Amino acid sequence: MSDPAFPSDWAEKLLSGDRRILAKAVTLVESTRSDHRDQAEALIAAVMPHTGKSTRIGISGVPGVGKSTFIEAFGQHVTDLGHRIAVLAVDPSSKRAGGSILGDKTRMEVLSRNPAAFIRPSPAGSTLGGVARRTRESMLLCEAAGFDVILVETVGVGQSETAVADMTDMFLLLLLPAGGDELQGLKKGIVELADMVLVNKADGDLAAQAKRTAADYHGALRLLNKVQADWTVPVLPCSALTGQGVDEAWTRIQAFRDLGTGNGGFQARRRDQARSWLWDELLAELTQRLRQDDTVRDMLPAVQKAVADGDLPAPIGARQLVDALLLGRNALQK
Amino acid sequence: MSDPAFPSDWAEKLLSGDRRILAKAVTLVESTRSDHRDQAEALIAAVMPHTGKSTRIGISGVPGVGKSTFIEAFGQHVTDLGHRIAVLAVDPSSKRAGGSILGDKTRMEVLSRNPAAFIRPSPAGSTLGGVARRTRESMLLCEAAGFDVILVETVGVGQSETAVADMTDMFLLLLLPAGGDELQGLKKGIVELADMVLVNKADGDLAAQAKRTAADYHGALRLLNKVQADWTVPVLPCSALTGQGVDEAWTRIQAFRDLGTGNGGFQARRRDQARSWLWDELLAELTQRLRQDDTVRDMLPAVQKAVADGDLPAPIGARQLVDALLLGRNALQK
Repeated sequence: MSDPAFPSDWAEKLLSGDRRILAKAVTLVESTRSDHRDQAEALIAAVMPHTGKSTRIGISGVPGVGKSTFIEAFGQHVTDLGHRIAVLAVDPSSKRAGGSILGDKTRMEVLSRNPAAFIRPSPAGSTLGGVARRTRESMLLCEAAGFDVILVETVGVGQSETAVADMTDMFLLLLLPAGGDELQGLKKGIVELADMVLVNKADGDLAAQAKRTAADYHGALRLLNKVQADWTVPVLPCSALTGQGVDEAWTRIQAFRDLGTGNGGFQARRRDQARSWLWDELLAELTQRLRQDDTVRDMLPAVQKAVADGDLPAPIGARQLVDALLLGRNALQK
Repeated sequence: MSDPAFPSDWAEKLLSGDRRILAKAVTLVESTRSDHRDQAEALIAAVMPHTGKSTRIGISGVPGVGKSTFIEAFGQHVTDLGHRIAVLAVDPSSKRAGGSILGDKTRMEVLSRNPAAFIRPSPAGSTLGGVARRTRESMLLCEAAGFDVILVETVGVGQSETAVADMTDMFLLLLLPAGGDELQGLKKGIVELADMVLVNKADGDLAAQAKRTAADYHGALRLLNKVQADWTVPVLPCSALTGQGVDEAWTRIQAFRDLGTGNGGFQARRRDQARSWLWDELLAELTQRLRQDDTVRDMLPAVQKAVADGDLPAPIGARQLVDALLLGRNALQK
């Protein structure tokens, strides 16, 4: 940290809310070049004391549920109230050229021109862990730049929900006004992650069905979920199109945050997340060193095949690989 | 592997079905002494080609649901059909002196005297990962000893369900004949792991309520679960006490296995499990090396606190720790 290694005025400009520098800083964080990585870490370290003061909200729902329209309506609502909102995303399937979520800013035409909003598509990446790490860091940069509401979007069909729930204070799930899961297309367990469920498209012909869906999920959640202290997961119909229910969603988010701040649940969740962040980074760093090691790389395919074929117990294979990383390297030094 | 380092006749005796040696071998696997660990790994490697031929069944349910009674009835049923059953457990909370599950063999009085059954309480351990690793290895030893049905019990109130589902071919959940979760005491997401749900105590006064509970959960699962190809999760009332429904459970297990063998789902699940087994072992091995490293151990508390307090970004903390493990060691060699 003695040599920050990034343009020395970036931290200062970021803290003053400079959006152009924020965008550049996020690009730096997303870079895979190791000199960029060093710069990104130094920048994050420099602004770290000014982070953590936002309300971090995860939001998920399958394609077609109306996430973009909801985020646009929600973003306009909270910026009208004087907040500044950053919208980030975690989608491991997105490609650099036109991510599948948030990639097309025209989907949020009004919000993307709103000076109190910052919208950024999912970083590209082949692993969920990698994408989630970058988004977690971008979140800190947005907080340093003064955004006090962070929305982290994900796509509702995979493991990314757990990653997003593990970096946010509250997890929202958007559902369609329809019954079973074939229509919803949701993976097992995702509904149960939600701190709040919103049944979108509760307008026009679908209004009545949205109400029925909300009641059905309310009942199902009551049956399957362990009751959380003081909090029953709300299942609310809303319409991103007409804006109905968007204010109610924001009110409930604040109530959830106030409740958590009061009973310590908010602080405990943040502390747990910091612990798992360090752990994730430790394992990622170790994994990277394993993958970069020439000897390990040579050995890995044969070990993997032997374990999958039942010819080699995994503990022995693992030990061989780790020995190659640690002892082999030492041997070379002798 | 050139020097097996365990009594040379153990592998042979194990393969001949010697129960006394099986018990000793499991004890070896559970030992934390590093010479025992070496011997255990060599033994597993020696018998590895003779493993994998059983039906591996995970079973969970909260205390009071009647798991022991069910396992006893189920074990008697399958041994009457000519099978040999091993009952293992994963319970990270169990202590060496009298584990909380399977520890008290008197709970399975008949089965524990059955020569075609082998019952073993959960290994002691402070982490779920550690306990699960030992149980996975014990499962291989039981298979080598000719047990063709393996039941892995867990306790239904924590993360251990995921670990058990990740080492078995099919995951069963026992429920009580009662409604909401306050009564069931289940953690979020556990119901959704199940490949089959059994509502136990469907006898006497509770018979009618058990049927209602089964119908309720059937409906809730249909609503929340993504449909699996060709398999709808059965929700069946049963009575471990009278034995009613136990044969049906076994029939369905075989149907699930036949289906999976036919459409490749069984083989795919096993392959995925082997992959995650190697990965678990790799991370466990790396973690152990980190923990054993003097420099890392000295640094860890301060790094953890700085990350939790928001003073240090986790990627930097992680890199410092891994550098201490890899580079520090190399530097010492120079």
